[in-house]
Amino acid sequence: MKDNNIKQYKKEFDYSYTSGAYATIEMIKANPEIVEAVYARTNYSGLTDLENLCCNYGIQIIISDKIFTKTDQKENSCVLGVFKKFIHELSGNAPHVVLVNPSDMGNMGTIIRTMAGFNMCDLAVITPAADIFNPKTVRASMGSLFHIRFREYQSFEEYRNEFLNHTCFPFMLDGKLDIREIPLNQKLFSLIFGSEAAGLPACFANYGTSVKIPLTDKVDSFNLAVAAGIGIFEFAGKNGII
Amino acid sequence: MKDNNIKQYKKEFDYSYTSGAYATIEMIKANPEIVEAVYARTNYSGLTDLENLCCNYGIQIIISDKIFTKTDQKENSCVLGVFKKFIHELSGNAPHVVLVNPSDMGNMGTIIRTMAGFNMCDLAVITPAADIFNPKTVRASMGSLFHIRFREYQSFEEYRNEFLNHTCFPFMLDGKLDIREIPLNQKLFSLIFGSEAAGLPACFANYGTSVKIPLTDKVDSFNLAVAAGIGIFEFAGKNGII
Repeated sequence: MKDNNIKQYKKEFDYSYTSGAYATIEMIKANPEIVEAVYARTNYSGLTDLENLCCNYGIQIIISDKIFTKTDQKENSCVLGVFKKFIHELSGNAPHVVLVNPSDMGNMGTIIRTMAGFNMCDLAVITPAADIFNPKTVRASMGSLFHIRFREYQSFEEYRNEFLNHTCFPFMLDGKLDIREIPLNQKLFSLIFGSEAAGLPACFANYGTSVKIPLTDKVDSFNLAVAAGIGIFEFAGKNGII
Repeated sequence: MKDNNIKQYKKEFDYSYTSGAYATIEMIKANPEIVEAVYARTNYSGLTDLENLCCNYGIQIIISDKIFTKTDQKENSCVLGVFKKFIHELSGNAPHVVLVNPSDMGNMGTIIRTMAGFNMCDLAVITPAADIFNPKTVRASMGSLFHIRFREYQSFEEYRNEFLNHTCFPFMLDGKLDIREIPLNQKLFSLIFGSEAAGLPACFANYGTSVKIPLTDKVDSFNLAVAAGIGIFEFAGKNGII
Protein backbone atom coordinates (compact mmCIF):
# COMPACT_ATOMS: atom_id res chain seq x y z
CA MET A 1 0.00 0.00 0.00
CA LYS A 2 1.52 3.28 -1.11
CA ASP A 3 0.94 6.79 0.20
CA ASN A 4 -1.24 7.65 -2.74
CA ASN A 5 -3.67 4.84 -1.90
CA ILE A 6 -4.81 6.46 1.34
CA LYS A 7 -8.15 8.18 0.93
CA GLN A 8 -10.66 9.74 3.21
CA TYR A 9 -12.77 6.88 4.62
CA LYS A 10 -16.00 5.89 2.93
CA LYS A 11 -18.47 3.28 4.16
CA GLU A 12 -18.21 1.20 0.97
CA PHE A 13 -14.47 0.62 1.41
CA ASP A 14 -13.42 -2.89 2.42
CA TYR A 15 -10.86 -1.37 4.76
CA SER A 16 -10.77 1.35 7.43
CA TYR A 17 -8.34 3.20 9.68
CA THR A 18 -7.28 3.42 13.28
CA SER A 19 -6.14 6.86 14.33
CA GLY A 20 -3.55 7.29 17.04
CA ALA A 21 -0.92 5.07 18.59
CA TYR A 22 -3.11 3.59 21.33
CA ALA A 23 -5.85 2.21 19.07
CA THR A 24 -3.36 1.05 16.45
CA ILE A 25 -1.26 -0.85 18.97
CA GLU A 26 -4.39 -2.40 20.54
CA MET A 27 -5.39 -3.59 17.08
CA ILE A 28 -1.98 -5.08 16.27
CA LYS A 29 -1.89 -6.98 19.55
CA ALA A 30 -5.49 -8.22 19.37
CA ASN A 31 -5.94 -8.90 15.62
CA PRO A 32 -2.62 -8.72 13.76
CA GLU A 33 -4.05 -10.65 10.81
CA ILE A 34 -6.36 -7.81 9.78
CA VAL A 35 -3.65 -5.13 9.71
CA GLU A 36 -2.66 -4.10 6.18
CA ALA A 37 -0.13 -1.41 7.05
CA VAL A 38 0.87 1.06 9.73
CA TYR A 39 1.94 4.65 9.11
CA ALA A 40 3.88 6.75 11.59
CA ARG A 41 5.15 10.32 11.57
CA THR A 42 8.87 10.84 11.48
CA ASN A 43 8.74 12.60 14.88
CA TYR A 44 6.58 9.97 16.67
CA SER A 45 8.22 9.42 20.04
CA GLY A 46 7.46 5.68 20.25
CA LEU A 47 8.77 4.86 16.81
CA THR A 48 11.31 2.20 17.78
CA ASP A 49 8.81 0.23 19.86
CA LEU A 50 6.20 0.46 17.12
CA GLU A 51 8.68 -0.70 14.49
CA ASN A 52 9.61 -3.68 16.65
CA LEU A 53 5.97 -4.56 17.22
CA CYS A 54 5.18 -4.42 13.50
CA CYS A 55 8.30 -6.41 12.72
CA ASN A 56 7.27 -9.14 15.18
CA TYR A 57 3.95 -9.55 13.41
CA GLY A 58 5.30 -9.10 9.86
CA ILE A 59 3.34 -5.88 9.38
CA GLN A 60 4.58 -3.23 6.96
CA ILE A 61 5.35 0.11 8.65
CA ILE A 62 5.78 3.28 6.62
CA ILE A 63 7.44 6.30 8.18
CA SER A 64 6.01 9.34 6.43
CA ASP A 65 4.60 12.74 7.32
CA LYS A 66 2.89 13.23 3.98
CA ILE A 67 0.16 10.69 4.62
CA PHE A 68 -1.07 12.57 7.69
CA THR A 69 -1.92 15.65 5.73
CA LYS A 70 -3.95 13.62 3.23
CA THR A 71 -6.32 11.83 5.57
CA ASP A 72 -9.02 13.49 7.60
CA GLN A 73 -7.02 13.79 10.81
CA LYS A 74 -8.53 16.40 13.06
CA GLU A 75 -6.67 14.94 15.99
CA ASN A 76 -3.21 15.41 14.62
CA SER A 77 -2.31 11.79 15.31
CA CYS A 78 1.19 10.45 14.88
CA VAL A 79 0.15 6.91 13.99
CA LEU A 80 -2.43 5.49 11.61
CA GLY A 81 -3.31 1.86 10.94
CA VAL A 82 -5.03 0.42 7.88
CA PHE A 83 -7.13 -2.70 8.49
CA LYS A 84 -9.33 -5.02 6.48
CA LYS A 85 -12.94 -5.10 7.61
CA PHE A 86 -13.94 -8.36 9.26
CA ILE A 87 -17.01 -10.14 10.58
CA HIS A 88 -17.56 -12.50 13.49
CA GLU A 89 -19.90 -15.14 14.70
CA LEU A 90 -21.30 -14.15 18.09
CA SER A 91 -20.74 -16.62 20.89
CA GLY A 92 -23.77 -18.72 21.76
CA ASN A 93 -22.42 -19.25 25.27
CA ALA A 94 -21.91 -15.65 26.35
CA PRO A 95 -24.25 -12.74 27.13
CA HIS A 96 -24.89 -10.21 24.36
CA VAL A 97 -25.51 -6.53 23.92
CA VAL A 98 -27.98 -5.69 21.14
CA LEU A 99 -28.14 -2.17 19.72
CA VAL A 100 -31.26 -1.52 17.66
CA ASN A 101 -30.65 1.19 15.05
CA PRO A 102 -27.97 3.19 16.87
CA SER A 103 -27.27 6.32 14.84
CA ASP A 104 -24.30 7.97 16.54
CA MET A 105 -20.80 6.63 15.92
CA GLY A 106 -19.47 8.19 19.11
CA ASN A 107 -22.11 6.43 21.21
CA MET A 108 -21.48 3.13 19.46
CA GLY A 109 -17.73 3.31 20.02
CA THR A 110 -18.22 4.34 23.64
CA ILE A 111 -20.57 1.39 24.24
CA ILE A 112 -18.01 -0.99 22.72
CA ARG A 113 -15.39 0.42 25.10
CA THR A 114 -17.75 -0.16 28.03
CA MET A 115 -18.48 -3.72 26.89
CA ALA A 116 -14.79 -4.60 26.62
CA GLY A 117 -14.19 -3.07 30.06
CA PHE A 118 -16.91 -5.20 31.65
CA ASN A 119 -16.03 -8.39 29.77
CA MET A 120 -19.23 -8.45 27.70
CA CYS A 121 -17.67 -9.19 24.35
CA ASP A 122 -20.55 -9.93 21.95
CA LEU A 123 -22.43 -7.16 20.16
CA ALA A 124 -25.35 -7.53 17.75
CA VAL A 125 -26.24 -4.43 15.74
CA ILE A 126 -29.66 -4.21 14.10
CA THR A 127 -29.48 -2.20 10.88
CA PRO A 128 -29.96 0.51 9.74
CA ALA A 129 -27.22 1.63 12.07
CA ALA A 130 -24.13 3.78 12.37
CA ASP A 131 -21.07 2.33 10.63
CA ILE A 132 -19.13 0.26 13.15
CA PHE A 133 -15.97 0.47 11.02
CA ASN A 134 -15.97 4.24 10.57
CA PRO A 135 -12.76 5.69 12.03
CA LYS A 136 -14.94 7.80 14.36
CA THR A 137 -16.45 4.66 15.89
CA VAL A 138 -13.03 3.05 16.15
CA ARG A 139 -11.65 6.17 17.83
CA ALA A 140 -14.53 6.39 20.34
CA SER A 141 -13.95 2.71 21.17
CA MET A 142 -10.31 3.53 21.99
CA GLY A 143 -9.27 0.46 20.03
CA SER A 144 -11.51 -1.89 22.04
CA LEU A 145 -13.41 -2.69 18.83
CA PHE A 146 -10.66 -5.24 18.26
CA HIS A 147 -11.43 -7.00 21.54
CA ILE A 148 -15.09 -7.81 20.89
CA ARG A 149 -17.14 -9.89 18.47
CA PHE A 150 -19.90 -8.13 16.57
CA ARG A 151 -22.33 -8.86 13.80
CA GLU A 152 -24.99 -6.89 11.95
CA TYR A 153 -28.53 -8.23 11.53
CA GLN A 154 -31.22 -6.94 9.20
CA SER A 155 -33.89 -7.27 11.87
CA PHE A 156 -34.23 -8.12 15.54
CA GLU A 157 -36.11 -11.29 14.58
CA GLU A 158 -33.12 -12.48 12.55
CA TYR A 159 -30.90 -12.04 15.62
CA ARG A 160 -33.48 -13.54 17.96
CA ASN A 161 -33.93 -16.68 15.88
CA GLU A 162 -30.23 -17.39 16.10
CA PHE A 163 -30.08 -17.12 19.90
CA LEU A 164 -33.31 -18.51 21.29
CA ASN A 165 -31.70 -19.53 24.59
CA HIS A 166 -30.80 -15.96 25.55
CA THR A 167 -33.16 -14.23 27.98
CA CYS A 168 -34.03 -10.82 26.56
CA PHE A 169 -33.94 -7.65 28.66
CA PRO A 170 -35.13 -4.72 26.56
CA PHE A 171 -34.32 -1.36 28.17
CA MET A 172 -37.39 0.88 28.00
CA LEU A 173 -38.52 4.08 29.69
CA ASP A 174 -41.67 2.31 30.88
CA GLY A 175 -39.87 -0.96 31.68
CA LYS A 176 -41.51 -3.30 34.19
CA LEU A 177 -38.41 -4.11 36.23
CA ASP A 178 -36.31 -1.49 38.04
CA ILE A 179 -32.70 -2.20 37.12
CA ARG A 180 -31.84 -2.38 40.82
CA GLU A 181 -34.00 -5.50 41.03
CA ILE A 182 -32.58 -7.55 38.19
CA PRO A 183 -32.40 -11.30 38.73
CA LEU A 184 -29.05 -12.66 39.87
CA ASN A 185 -27.08 -15.54 38.40
CA GLN A 186 -28.15 -14.98 34.81
CA LYS A 187 -25.76 -16.60 32.37
CA LEU A 188 -27.23 -16.20 28.90
CA PHE A 189 -28.92 -12.88 28.39
CA SER A 190 -29.30 -10.12 25.81
CA LEU A 191 -29.36 -6.48 26.90
CA ILE A 192 -31.29 -4.58 24.22
CA PHE A 193 -31.06 -0.83 23.70
CA GLY A 194 -32.96 1.31 21.17
CA SER A 195 -31.90 4.32 19.15
CA GLU A 196 -30.86 7.71 20.53
CA ALA A 197 -33.93 9.46 19.17
CA ALA A 198 -36.72 6.96 19.73
CA GLY A 199 -35.61 4.21 22.12
CA LEU A 200 -37.16 0.78 21.53
CA PRO A 201 -40.59 0.35 19.93
CA ALA A 202 -43.28 -0.78 22.40
CA CYS A 203 -43.40 -4.29 20.87
CA PHE A 204 -40.01 -5.09 22.42
CA ALA A 205 -41.73 -5.51 25.78
CA ASN A 206 -43.02 -8.82 24.37
CA TYR A 207 -39.52 -10.21 23.88
CA GLY A 208 -38.69 -10.50 27.57
CA THR A 209 -38.67 -8.59 30.84
CA SER A 210 -38.41 -4.90 30.07
CA VAL A 211 -36.03 -3.00 32.33
CA LYS A 212 -36.13 0.66 33.32
CA ILE A 213 -33.45 2.88 34.76
CA PRO A 214 -35.20 5.19 37.24
CA LEU A 215 -35.15 8.87 36.32
CA THR A 216 -36.63 12.17 37.45
CA ASP A 217 -38.95 14.31 35.35
CA LYS A 218 -36.07 16.76 34.77
CA VAL A 219 -34.94 14.76 31.73
CA ASP A 220 -36.88 12.63 29.30
CA SER A 221 -34.15 10.01 28.88
CA PHE A 222 -30.46 9.34 29.43
CA ASN A 223 -27.74 9.51 26.84
CA LEU A 224 -27.61 6.10 25.09
CA ALA A 225 -23.98 5.38 26.00
CA VAL A 226 -24.69 6.25 29.65
CA ALA A 227 -27.85 4.11 29.81
CA ALA A 228 -26.03 1.19 28.18
CA GLY A 229 -23.08 1.72 30.53
CA ILE A 230 -25.32 1.49 33.60
CA GLY A 231 -27.17 -1.50 32.19
CA ILE A 232 -24.04 -3.41 31.23
CA PHE A 233 -22.37 -2.65 34.56
CA GLU A 234 -25.37 -3.77 36.60
CA PHE A 235 -25.77 -7.02 34.69
CA ALA A 236 -22.06 -7.78 34.46
CA GLY A 237 -21.41 -6.79 38.06
CA LYS A 238 -24.27 -8.80 39.56
CA ASN A 239 -23.81 -11.90 37.44
CA GLY A 240 -20.15 -12.59 38.04
CA ILE A 241 -18.99 -11.42 34.61
CA ILE A 242 -16.70 -8.74 36.03
CA MET B 1 -32.19 42.11 20.46
CA LYS B 2 -32.17 42.39 16.70
CA ASP B 3 -31.16 39.79 14.12
CA ASN B 4 -27.88 41.51 13.48
CA ASN B 5 -26.83 41.10 17.12
CA ILE B 6 -26.65 37.30 16.87
CA LYS B 7 -23.08 36.13 16.49
CA GLN B 8 -21.30 32.84 16.60
CA TYR B 9 -20.78 32.02 20.28
CA LYS B 10 -17.55 32.99 22.01
CA LYS B 11 -16.55 32.13 25.56
CA GLU B 12 -16.13 35.77 26.56
CA PHE B 13 -19.77 36.63 25.75
CA ASP B 14 -22.05 37.28 28.71
CA TYR B 15 -24.79 35.35 26.94
CA SER B 16 -25.13 32.03 25.11
CA TYR B 17 -27.64 30.04 23.07
CA THR B 18 -29.89 27.04 23.32
CA SER B 19 -30.35 25.19 20.07
CA GLY B 20 -33.56 23.34 19.33
CA ALA B 21 -37.10 23.47 20.68
CA TYR B 22 -36.61 20.96 23.49
CA ALA B 23 -33.71 22.69 25.23
CA THR B 24 -35.21 26.13 24.70
CA ILE B 25 -38.57 25.15 26.20
CA GLU B 26 -36.82 23.44 29.15
CA MET B 27 -34.93 26.67 29.77
CA ILE B 28 -38.03 28.86 29.60
CA LYS B 29 -39.90 26.64 32.05
CA ALA B 30 -36.99 26.24 34.48
CA ASN B 31 -35.34 29.69 34.37
CA PRO B 32 -37.51 32.21 32.50
CA GLU B 33 -35.66 35.14 34.07
CA ILE B 34 -32.45 34.40 32.18
CA VAL B 35 -34.07 34.27 28.73
CA GLU B 36 -33.29 37.30 26.60
CA ALA B 37 -35.13 36.28 23.43
CA VAL B 38 -36.36 33.30 21.48
CA TYR B 39 -36.07 32.87 17.72
CA ALA B 40 -38.17 30.45 15.69
CA ARG B 41 -38.29 29.55 12.02
CA THR B 42 -41.42 30.51 10.10
CA ASN B 43 -42.11 26.81 9.40
CA TYR B 44 -41.62 25.54 12.99
CA SER B 45 -44.53 23.19 13.67
CA GLY B 46 -44.96 24.12 17.34
CA LEU B 47 -45.00 27.85 16.75
CA THR B 48 -48.36 28.64 18.40
CA ASP B 49 -47.50 26.79 21.61
CA LEU B 50 -44.07 28.41 21.75
CA GLU B 51 -45.57 31.87 21.21
CA ASN B 52 -48.03 31.26 24.03
CA LEU B 53 -45.27 30.05 26.34
CA CYS B 54 -43.11 33.11 25.63
CA CYS B 55 -46.12 35.38 26.03
CA ASN B 56 -46.89 33.86 29.45
CA TYR B 57 -43.39 34.67 30.66
CA GLY B 58 -43.10 38.05 28.91
CA ILE B 59 -40.32 36.77 26.66
CA GLN B 60 -39.74 38.33 23.24
CA ILE B 61 -40.15 35.85 20.38
CA ILE B 62 -38.88 36.67 16.91
CA ILE B 63 -40.12 34.66 13.93
CA SER B 64 -37.34 34.75 11.37
CA ASP B 65 -35.50 32.37 9.08
CA LYS B 66 -32.58 34.70 8.52
CA ILE B 67 -31.12 34.25 11.99
CA PHE B 68 -30.71 30.51 11.49
CA THR B 69 -28.34 30.97 8.60
CA LYS B 70 -26.16 33.34 10.61
CA THR B 71 -25.46 31.23 13.67
CA ASP B 72 -23.40 28.08 13.74
CA GLN B 73 -26.31 25.67 13.43
CA LYS B 74 -25.11 22.33 12.16
CA GLU B 75 -28.27 20.73 13.42
CA ASN B 76 -30.68 22.75 11.36
CA SER B 77 -32.75 23.64 14.42
CA CYS B 78 -36.06 25.47 14.19
CA VAL B 79 -35.76 27.22 17.55
CA LEU B 80 -32.95 29.13 19.23
CA GLY B 81 -32.91 30.77 22.65
CA VAL B 82 -30.62 33.53 23.86
CA PHE B 83 -29.86 33.51 27.59
CA LYS B 84 -27.79 35.54 30.04
CA LYS B 85 -25.08 33.55 31.74
CA PHE B 86 -25.71 32.95 35.43
CA ILE B 87 -23.98 31.57 38.52
CA HIS B 88 -25.27 29.65 41.52
CA GLU B 89 -24.38 28.85 45.07
CA LEU B 90 -24.18 25.10 45.52
CA SER B 91 -26.43 23.62 48.17
CA GLY B 92 -24.67 22.76 51.44
CA ASN B 93 -27.34 20.17 52.19
CA ALA B 94 -27.21 18.07 49.04
CA PRO B 95 -24.66 15.70 47.51
CA HIS B 96 -22.33 17.09 44.86
CA VAL B 97 -20.60 16.00 41.70
CA VAL B 98 -17.13 17.50 41.24
CA LEU B 99 -15.46 17.47 37.82
CA VAL B 100 -11.75 18.22 37.95
CA ASN B 101 -10.53 19.75 34.68
CA PRO B 102 -13.05 18.17 32.29
CA SER B 103 -12.02 19.05 28.75
CA ASP B 104 -14.84 17.79 26.54
CA MET B 105 -18.05 19.79 26.25
CA GLY B 106 -20.02 16.75 25.11
CA ASN B 107 -18.98 14.76 28.17
CA MET B 108 -19.77 17.66 30.47
CA GLY B 109 -23.25 18.14 29.01
CA THR B 110 -23.92 14.40 29.13
CA ILE B 111 -22.89 14.26 32.81
CA ILE B 112 -25.22 17.17 33.59
CA ARG B 113 -28.05 15.27 31.89
CA THR B 114 -27.26 12.20 34.00
CA MET B 115 -27.16 14.30 37.19
CA ALA B 116 -30.56 15.87 36.50
CA GLY B 117 -31.99 12.43 35.73
CA PHE B 118 -30.78 11.01 39.04
CA ASN B 119 -31.71 14.08 41.10
CA MET B 120 -28.12 15.04 41.88
CA CYS B 121 -28.41 18.74 41.18
CA ASP B 122 -25.16 20.34 42.37
CA LEU B 123 -22.05 20.43 40.20
CA ALA B 124 -18.65 21.91 41.07
CA VAL B 125 -16.25 22.35 38.17
CA ILE B 126 -12.54 22.80 38.90
CA THR B 127 -10.91 25.00 36.28
CA PRO B 128 -9.31 24.95 33.77
CA ALA B 129 -12.31 23.21 32.26
CA ALA B 130 -14.54 23.05 29.22
CA ASP B 131 -16.98 25.96 28.92
CA ILE B 132 -20.24 24.97 30.64
CA PHE B 133 -22.16 27.68 28.74
CA ASN B 134 -20.94 26.74 25.28
CA PRO B 135 -23.93 25.81 23.08
CA LYS B 136 -22.31 22.37 22.58
CA THR B 137 -22.43 21.70 26.33
CA VAL B 138 -26.00 23.00 26.52
CA ARG B 139 -27.00 20.76 23.62
CA ALA B 140 -25.34 17.66 25.11
CA SER B 141 -27.19 18.37 28.36
CA MET B 142 -30.51 18.37 26.44
CA GLY B 143 -31.53 21.48 28.32
CA SER B 144 -30.94 19.91 31.75
CA LEU B 145 -28.26 22.53 32.43
CA PHE B 146 -31.17 24.71 33.53
CA HIS B 147 -32.23 22.19 36.18
CA ILE B 148 -28.98 22.05 38.13
CA ARG B 149 -26.81 24.37 40.21
CA PHE B 150 -23.17 24.69 39.24
CA ARG B 151 -20.16 26.74 40.17
CA GLU B 152 -16.58 26.96 39.01
CA TYR B 153 -13.66 26.83 41.45
CA GLN B 154 -10.04 27.72 40.80
CA SER B 155 -8.81 24.71 42.73
CA PHE B 156 -10.14 21.63 44.49
CA GLU B 157 -9.00 23.10 47.82
CA GLU B 158 -11.18 26.16 47.24
CA TYR B 159 -14.18 23.88 46.74
CA ARG B 160 -13.24 21.61 49.63
CA ASN B 161 -12.91 24.46 52.12
CA GLU B 162 -16.45 25.55 51.38
CA PHE B 163 -17.97 22.11 51.97
CA LEU B 164 -16.03 20.46 54.78
CA ASN B 165 -18.99 18.31 55.84
CA HIS B 166 -19.17 16.44 52.54
CA THR B 167 -17.54 12.99 52.48
CA CYS B 168 -15.29 12.80 49.41
CA PHE B 169 -15.30 9.82 47.05
CA PRO B 170 -12.62 10.34 44.39
CA PHE B 171 -13.03 7.93 41.45
CA MET B 172 -9.64 6.44 40.60
CA LEU B 173 -8.40 3.48 38.58
CA ASP B 174 -6.58 2.18 41.67
CA GLY B 175 -9.37 3.12 44.07
CA LYS B 176 -9.55 1.26 47.39
CA LEU B 177 -13.27 0.56 47.42
CA ASP B 178 -15.10 -1.39 44.69
CA ILE B 179 -18.13 0.68 43.72
CA ARG B 180 -20.36 -2.31 44.43
CA GLU B 181 -19.40 -2.01 48.09
CA ILE B 182 -20.11 1.67 48.69
CA PRO B 183 -21.51 2.57 52.11
CA LEU B 184 -25.29 2.98 52.30
CA ASN B 185 -27.25 5.86 53.76
CA GLN B 186 -24.78 8.56 52.83
CA LYS B 187 -26.39 11.97 52.80
CA LEU B 188 -23.65 14.53 52.19
CA PHE B 189 -21.06 13.32 49.73
CA SER B 190 -18.98 14.53 46.80
CA LEU B 191 -18.34 12.25 43.83
CA ILE B 192 -15.09 13.43 42.25
CA PHE B 193 -14.03 12.63 38.68
CA GLY B 194 -10.81 13.60 36.90
CA SER B 195 -10.14 14.63 33.34
CA GLU B 196 -10.65 12.50 30.23
CA ALA B 197 -6.95 12.24 29.53
CA ALA B 198 -5.39 11.85 32.96
CA GLY B 199 -8.06 11.00 35.55
CA LEU B 200 -7.39 12.31 39.06
CA PRO B 201 -3.88 12.96 40.39
CA ALA B 202 -2.76 10.41 43.00
CA CYS B 203 -3.04 12.99 45.82
CA PHE B 204 -6.84 12.82 45.62
CA ALA B 205 -6.72 9.49 47.45
CA ASN B 206 -5.97 11.57 50.56
CA TYR B 207 -9.25 13.47 50.35
CA GLY B 208 -11.48 10.52 51.17
CA THR B 209 -12.21 6.92 50.23
CA SER B 210 -11.13 6.36 46.65
CA VAL B 211 -13.57 4.32 44.56
CA LYS B 212 -12.85 2.10 41.59
CA ILE B 213 -15.15 0.78 38.91
CA PRO B 214 -13.94 -2.75 38.10
CA LEU B 215 -12.60 -3.22 34.58
CA THR B 216 -10.83 -5.80 32.47
CA ASP B 217 -7.40 -5.34 30.95
CA LYS B 218 -9.01 -4.88 27.52
CA VAL B 219 -9.42 -1.15 28.16
CA ASP B 220 -7.35 1.24 30.22
CA SER B 221 -10.32 3.30 31.42
CA PHE B 222 -13.97 4.07 30.73
CA ASN B 223 -15.32 7.08 28.92
CA LEU B 224 -15.71 9.88 31.50
CA ALA B 225 -19.45 10.33 30.98
CA VAL B 226 -19.99 6.56 31.32
CA ALA B 227 -17.86 6.31 34.48
CA ALA B 228 -19.65 9.30 36.00
CA GLY B 229 -23.01 7.83 34.97
CA ILE B 230 -22.27 4.55 36.75
CA GLY B 231 -20.92 6.36 39.81
CA ILE B 232 -23.85 8.77 40.08
CA PHE B 233 -26.38 5.98 39.56
CA GLU B 234 -24.83 3.72 42.18
CA PHE B 235 -24.64 6.47 44.80
CA ALA B 236 -28.04 7.99 44.00
CA GLY B 237 -29.72 4.60 43.72
CA LYS B 238 -28.32 3.19 46.95
CA ASN B 239 -28.78 6.32 49.04
CA GLY B 240 -32.43 7.06 48.41
CA ILE B 241 -31.81 10.01 46.09
CA ILE B 242 -33.63 8.42 43.18
